Amino acid sequence: MSDEKPQIGRLGSFVLLASCPDRKGIVAAVTEFICRHEGNILDLEQHVASDDAMFFMRVEIDRSGFRLGEEEFATAFQPIAGRFAMQWELRRTDRRPRMAIAVTREPHCLYDILVRHQSGEWAVDIPLVFSNREDLRATVERFGIPFHVFPITPDTREAQEARELKLLAEERVDFLVLARYMQILGPAFVHAYPNRILNIHHSFLPAFAGARPYHAAFERGVKIIGATSHYVTAELDRGPIIEQDVIRVSHRDSVEEMIRKGRDNEKVVLARAIRAHLEHRILVYQNRTVVFG
Amino acid sequence: MSDEKPQIGRLGSFVLLASCPDRKGIVAAVTEFICRHEGNILDLEQHVASDDAMFFMRVEIDRSGFRLGEEEFATAFQPIAGRFAMQWELRRTDRRPRMAIAVTREPHCLYDILVRHQSGEWAVDIPLVFSNREDLRATVERFGIPFHVFPITPDTREAQEARELKLLAEERVDFLVLARYMQILGPAFVHAYPNRILNIHHSFLPAFAGARPYHAAFERGVKIIGATSHYVTAELDRGPIIEQDVIRVSHRDSVEEMIRKGRDNEKVVLARAIRAHLEHRILVYQNRTVVFG
Amino acid sequence: MSDEKPQIGRLGSFVLLASCPDRKGIVAAVTEFICRHEGNILDLEQHVASDDAMFFMRVEIDRSGFRLGEEEFATAFQPIAGRFAMQWELRRTDRRPRMAIAVTREPHCLYDILVRHQSGEWAVDIPLVFSNREDLRATVERFGIPFHVFPITPDTREAQEARELKLLAEERVDFLVLARYMQILGPAFVHAYPNRILNIHHSFLPAFAGARPYHAAFERGVKIIGATSHYVTAELDRGPIIEQDVIRVSHRDSVEEMIRKGRDNEKVVLARAIRAHLEHRILVYQNRTVVFG
Amino acid sequence: MSDEKPQIGRLGSFVLLASCPDRKGIVAAVTEFICRHEGNILDLEQHVASDDAMFFMRVEIDRSGFRLGEEEFATAFQPIAGRFAMQWELRRTDRRPRMAIAVTREPHCLYDILVRHQSGEWAVDIPLVFSNREDLRATVERFGIPFHVFPITPDTREAQEARELKLLAEERVDFLVLARYMQILGPAFVHAYPNRILNIHHSFLPAFAGARPYHAAFERGVKIIGATSHYVTAELDRGPIIEQDVIRVSHRDSVEEMIRKGRDNEKVVLARAIRAHLEHRILVYQNRTVVFG
Repeated sequence: MSDEKPQIGRLGSFVLLASCPDRKGIVAAVTEFICRHEGNILDLEQHVASDDAMFFMRVEIDRSGFRLGEEEFATAFQPIAGRFAMQWELRRTDRRPRMAIAVTREPHCLYDILVRHQSGEWAVDIPLVFSNREDLRATVERFGIPFHVFPITPDTREAQEARELKLLAEERVDFLVLARYMQILGPAFVHAYPNRILNIHHSFLPAFAGARPYHAAFERGVKIIGATSHYVTAELDRGPIIEQDVIRVSHRDSVEEMIRKGRDNEKVVLARAIRAHLEHRILVYQNRTVVFG
Repeated sequence: MSDEKPQIGRLGSFVLLASCPDRKGIVAAVTEFICRHEGNILDLEQHVASDDAMFFMRVEIDRSGFRLGEEEFATAFQPIAGRFAMQWELRRTDRRPRMAIAVTREPHCLYDILVRHQSGEWAVDIPLVFSNREDLRATVERFGIPFHVFPITPDTREAQEARELKLLAEERVDFLVLARYMQILGPAFVHAYPNRILNIHHSFLPAFAGARPYHAAFERGVKIIGATSHYVTAELDRGPIIEQDVIRVSHRDSVEEMIRKGRDNEKVVLARAIRAHLEHRILVYQNRTVVFG
Repeated sequence: MSDEKPQIGRLGSFVLLASCPDRKGIVAAVTEFICRHEGNILDLEQHVASDDAMFFMRVEIDRSGFRLGEEEFATAFQPIAGRFAMQWELRRTDRRPRMAIAVTREPHCLYDILVRHQSGEWAVDIPLVFSNREDLRATVERFGIPFHVFPITPDTREAQEARELKLLAEERVDFLVLARYMQILGPAFVHAYPNRILNIHHSFLPAFAGARPYHAAFERGVKIIGATSHYVTAELDRGPIIEQDVIRVSHRDSVEEMIRKGRDNEKVVLARAIRAHLEHRILVYQNRTVVFG
Repeated sequence: MSDEKPQIGRLGSFVLLASCPDRKGIVAAVTEFICRHEGNILDLEQHVASDDAMFFMRVEIDRSGFRLGEEEFATAFQPIAGRFAMQWELRRTDRRPRMAIAVTREPHCLYDILVRHQSGEWAVDIPLVFSNREDLRATVERFGIPFHVFPITPDTREAQEARELKLLAEERVDFLVLARYMQILGPAFVHAYPNRILNIHHSFLPAFAGARPYHAAFERGVKIIGATSHYVTAELDRGPIIEQDVIRVSHRDSVEEMIRKGRDNEKVVLARAIRAHLEHRILVYQNRTVVFG
């Protein structure tokens, strides 16, 4: 039996994310495996990237009645994973992820996240926000969330990022959202959270990467501006894109108007990306994303 | 092995469309059945309508290597269909459907369809176009397609529709597209082609059903206008919606401007609906559609 | 000299909003009048509704150097207004309007407005929020804004609305925003603030007016849902539309998903309507709006 | 008296396009001038680019009753133009422009233009289509329009372009539309038609300039693809942008799907740009466009 609302069961559900070279019989093997252990498939999506014949799959399994626990699953699933040379991971929907936020001065994405969190829109905990500046302390603390400042200069970057990583580890943070954080993360930091740092860039990437994208968009005279949420990789603004959206502008819009209108777009693009991440709907392959349903 | 392009195999593929009350094990049973007969699943999508616990599924099976032909499939699949009280149909992608078109005076949707057809965008044959008027004869015949006229008056409607149905039957028409056909089809006609008559209505239904929707939209002062493609049912403009889209208007747009801008919207909405129908991606249930992929 | 940013001058600017039957020479007469009194036109937009030949105009005049004050303008402009049978009003951009908000239980539009206000996005004061329930008191008071509760029953409506009107008058409120206020205002209330009560309705009007529009949209199986901001008139959900926008949904979206996705749409539609109202860009005529640039 | 439909008068109307450094009194001077010569302003739009204080204006004047003819206007307007250091041009709406089209192999934009032309959607004449290949001859000739082929190799480019220019001159072509013309025009050609060659580029510029933009977009994993219509300048894909639009894609879309979906976007973006050009609504300044109303 399937259902759109995953967390109905007392025990929540498992989400199996898997990818492998495409071959005959993958879906049948996986679904037969689940059925054999009395699992109830709540949702199943699959995709084959035809250009390089890679297979991607997301299956959500009701844990009520399912005979396998987290560790048993790994053992029991091993033969199938081996046969298809599958990369896979299993996630539990009853475990609220812990999300940290990094900000600098712009409050709009931060506010948007805090309000959604407070309204209960997302099943997530926010143990901390950190920044390289003091500006947004009051905003964050008003929502009862600890605010940490790590000032960054070229000389202190490495040491400060080490302290940030230590804090994230202590707080058992699962993933980090850069909500208009105006510092470039060093390679050690990026390496510590692969496909677990979400950024919002205020342009329609790959157009206008780097600094001051609205100014660049204005200069170029574009008729549409965008925002892009992507996972952070070592290469600036080049990570796998999760979500993008755009809004229409015209000659009437000054740079300031573009910035103002763009904010509403940035907020919603970042929120959609966070939601997809929280729901374990994203698979990354070849610096691109598969974002299921 | 899966693939995005269905018709790769020499024999094309089967599309299985199925729906039933939601229960445990449907996906596993169907995929195991396909696998057992050496079938290769090219694509699989499923959906559960949580409000009434109905299960919907679309599976595309490569016919190369598949041990079942069309009739054998029916027999072999019967036990599964019976067990789950499943409604199902099997379609072949190597069989080009035959599409008829009905028009009156507006040429834009007609032209759009004829050009797509001629460009080879769709795997469809168009054996005929019919109309209640002569106006578009030259447009149609220029594309080498027979054009039939059935003038309609209140007194002749029933007899003329019978003649139309006879023609459609003779030409083995699979489905009919009303490309701005300005006559209301009688119940006998509608009944003859259930979920096989596609209409384009020039409003965002359910707003502005009936005649002169752009005039009504202008009167109401809306800031967005739409178009809706739906299957025709006995109730006017109330059939299951396949596709909708909108465009922005403003106080600057007169009714004439709305009509002009709306045409581009109508064309693309109808074209998307036709494509979904041709690719066997639509399931109808409770006067709503599930449109896969 | 013109400029996109109105409030540059020390004294701000005047906005002249005018409408009259269309005739030759209106623009020339008005601009010559402004020029003669040493006024600097910052922005000028005009529109003629061709269906009924009505002329609409918005002119923004820099007050620096302009020889006319508010009262003198009225006297000096009278001959032109008389000649063209013009309806007109003059507004000052240096005077921050006072906006009240009415809410019930849904916090998303309220939060969105409070955060924009706090971020300084709008030149507006918010002296109060009122509600028929206690639910959102903490949210409002956190932003340092007084929160008033007027419980409503069929028997008390008239008396309570009189108290609300008294409060609005005492606080010199210029206009009222219904940010998902789930009570129907009585005729006396509506009459007191003509074209000065903005509502957000959670559907693409005129589709799904009245209660539970997302449920109705789901039932009808639409592929797009919308939100509409309009001025409140005596007829429910029938007032002049200021702004609308839509988002795409599919069979995958349950009613709950539509409600969740719709919230982001409602917020931005209401915010745009408020901004247009604040910038004196809206003219109402025949239950429709002209929303300038 | 104003009106949305310009060509009502027996004589059509004049469109005055003007730009100059922003100063006090420009609108008043121009409108007073028109009024003094008994001109009836049908439409007036103005814009000030605040970043560099440039003023732009478009005025449409009914020629019925207007005392000035084309040449008299130039003389009479000279004092105002001189006073404000104005660049200006005057166009007549009763004179159908002559538009040439260049194509290579892709038929979709060509077809779209020919059908709109045939339907009378635009007030334009199309005296010829030229190409570097024979492929689309039948498509063009079916619409009764002469088709010319100028094969291009690196060695013959210059000579062939000279022949093309000669043909355009003989046919008194006002502007040229590159409807997926897959040759780069040489500097002499571009120089001959400043802001009078419209191109459609199949990406959201400045992203994915140059060849094979859909392939590049697929590689980068974007979630939205676009199309851009711009005036051609010496620098490839860098000319002033007239119109852009986008469509949403996902991991499900192969390059071929992007190409197919993109076509519908290209068609409508190019059609909107052509319409704006035909209606004399475009002003170019600093490699950007002002596109009025």
